[in-house]
Amino acid sequence: MNQIERYLAIAAGKDEVHAGDDLTVKVDLAIAHDITGPMAVEQFKKIGIDRVFDPKKVVFILDHIIPAATVEAKVLHNVLKEFSQEYGVKLYDKGEGVIHQVIAEKHRLKRGSILVGADSHTCTAGAYGALAIAVGATELAATMATGTIDLEVPDVFEIHIDGKLLPGVYAKDVILHLIGHYGTAGFTDQGVIYSGSLMDQLTMDDKMTISNMGIEMGTMISYFADQDQAVGTVKEVYTFKAENIPASVACPPNPGNVVRAADLPSTKISQVVIGSCTNGRLSDMLIAAEVLKGRKVAAGVTLLIIPASVDIAQQMEDQGLNLIFREAGGMITSPGCGPCFGAHMGLLAAGDVAVSTTNRNFPGRMGHLEGIIYLASPRLAAESAIAGTIVAPGRVVPLGGLADELEK
Amino acid sequence: MNQIERYLAIAAGKDEVHAGDDLTVKVDLAIAHDITGPMAVEQFKKIGIDRVFDPKKVVFILDHIIPAATVEAKVLHNVLKEFSQEYGVKLYDKGEGVIHQVIAEKHRLKRGSILVGADSHTCTAGAYGALAIAVGATELAATMATGTIDLEVPDVFEIHIDGKLLPGVYAKDVILHLIGHYGTAGFTDQGVIYSGSLMDQLTMDDKMTISNMGIEMGTMISYFADQDQAVGTVKEVYTFKAENIPASVACPPNPGNVVRAADLPSTKISQVVIGSCTNGRLSDMLIAAEVLKGRKVAAGVTLLIIPASVDIAQQMEDQGLNLIFREAGGMITSPGCGPCFGAHMGLLAAGDVAVSTTNRNFPGRMGHLEGIIYLASPRLAAESAIAGTIVAPGRVVPLGGLADELEK
Repeated sequence: MNQIERYLAIAAGKDEVHAGDDLTVKVDLAIAHDITGPMAVEQFKKIGIDRVFDPKKVVFILDHIIPAATVEAKVLHNVLKEFSQEYGVKLYDKGEGVIHQVIAEKHRLKRGSILVGADSHTCTAGAYGALAIAVGATELAATMATGTIDLEVPDVFEIHIDGKLLPGVYAKDVILHLIGHYGTAGFTDQGVIYSGSLMDQLTMDDKMTISNMGIEMGTMISYFADQDQAVGTVKEVYTFKAENIPASVACPPNPGNVVRAADLPSTKISQVVIGSCTNGRLSDMLIAAEVLKGRKVAAGVTLLIIPASVDIAQQMEDQGLNLIFREAGGMITSPGCGPCFGAHMGLLAAGDVAVSTTNRNFPGRMGHLEGIIYLASPRLAAESAIAGTIVAPGRVVPLGGLADELEK
Repeated sequence: MNQIERYLAIAAGKDEVHAGDDLTVKVDLAIAHDITGPMAVEQFKKIGIDRVFDPKKVVFILDHIIPAATVEAKVLHNVLKEFSQEYGVKLYDKGEGVIHQVIAEKHRLKRGSILVGADSHTCTAGAYGALAIAVGATELAATMATGTIDLEVPDVFEIHIDGKLLPGVYAKDVILHLIGHYGTAGFTDQGVIYSGSLMDQLTMDDKMTISNMGIEMGTMISYFADQDQAVGTVKEVYTFKAENIPASVACPPNPGNVVRAADLPSTKISQVVIGSCTNGRLSDMLIAAEVLKGRKVAAGVTLLIIPASVDIAQQMEDQGLNLIFREAGGMITSPGCGPCFGAHMGLLAAGDVAVSTTNRNFPGRMGHLEGIIYLASPRLAAESAIAGTIVAPGRVVPLGGLADELEK
């Protein structure tokens, strides 16, 4: 068995499992947010039982539209407030941040735990070794009742990356490069285990960025190998050299349309978004702040800085990053999903062009169908904000010019 | 002549003016925001001239829906971006804050200057002695072309307040008390000059709170007397004793429905808003922070903290207020109008009850028609956030227990 199968077997109470087996596994944590949570609550109430399987193992978070941008959003918030009071489940309702970040900070599961989430980027938790599976709201409602989930053991692939990233290349570039390579359906309903010497150099923040976007190439489970044990038998091993991964940009219309940043023609932009469950952590903000320090956002460009959690917001403050962002002309918002989901806090009109550190760039994702989104690293996004056009890292701050690169 | 007439005469180039005279006066600054600005631009373009009267004297600010909560809001932002580039007028487009606060910080006019603004709370600038007149977008467009405004000299009344405010009573209570006393149409299209020994004790922040809500009793011009000269001949002088002004709350359905805070029956709340052009300044945040320090927002209550400008946001950070707010369970948003205007960032659903430091509580003002708003001071709002019900100052922190009260 491989590492994913080994933990699925434990959760299913079996000695051995293999790809294709149908299992019922015990769930360690079930999560949902202000869009999917109310749908799950509605389905749960139809089941007709008066308690969730374990109130300590169900967590709701308001993150997609908080503060409420519409009356409808506030109604959704109120549904979860009432449910949490009635059923005793935890609700984060004070703008604590994006669900995947808050779970990592406050409910970090131990390796091999089963996390089920009604959000496609639930896979983020693979960074710290949870088997993190995205489900629909109806499935989540069933889990809330039973404490289990039915699944088919996936085929598992190993992505093995050795070496060191070049200056100006980040975890975001790694995952964009992979999505570009395999396409948005490259690993649909399959498991991916990340291994190789690059992993030893990645921080937890980096790993969360990579696992977060696993779903953009279809993965059911993204998983960072336990370095103490063998990965085990997988369907195939794909090998990459870190040095060959370039600074990358996902162009419209989807995260799989990836090009080398250096190959992009000059493109004028009107908005830059630095944040989200993909790249809204302190390390991302530190990189952006180093780029923006003493520089100014280009005229006509709106720079949104969106901490992934309130703890990160406070750390940004403690480290003096906010003053840098404000002096550069950036706008710091409250923690949460920001405009990523297209619901509020920085939407695009037709003709707007954004560089964003978020995870999706489908037409209409961030507002109007003709509002265009390029996905990239915080470094590239910050340099582009200053340039007013999409630029490869190195155009505003020389490659090797940031503290973290000098360390490499 | 009284002080208002004296300055109107200067701006009209006349030796003497009197109530009822029709004047054309020179405008020193014309302002609009992301809701009214695009309407003014549209009207201005119909006039068919190729320049504004003086690009240095026209200022636009994005404050009502920033970051853009809808595609339509972003279109409005883009209209002002294009206009400002084409006509060379200043546009604050980076979330600098609420128009009235940003004008006070960056474009503070000298006493007797004429400010024309396409926003009903333009009167805020009366705090620093500007003759600040709210106009419609079409009128503003004409001013943008001509640099003048036509007006009828208003009847002017003097509100003379002597004495000292009691502990727990603030500038917000003064203006709520007056609106309650005179009603929402008490001074429609008239001028009000504030005088008396209380004024010597008020800070500029306090004066801005009072002049801000002048429009809620209908005033065309709210004006704080120049202490060096006589107020002059006014239609009537009304006298109040500061000691008789109680901590007050404006109940639904309008700002004139004012009761003593102590007389309100216990009312459960679900949201508290501290911010806006009425009460989003540093002094307001200091009071709220003193109340919230080491305490927790009640379960089920959303506390929104909304700085009136980015400079205030930075000062809050520098003074350590944000950590206090976050530890209490408050949510700090980006600067701007917040939910006050009912467009985003904390709307109410039916059944929600808010205590807010903003200036209007008409049905539907902050979301659903059945979302109820009580207007009060930051002190009362902060104490209520902790209590979970509307409470008079003193219930959570003893009267005389805040630093600013000990100084009184």
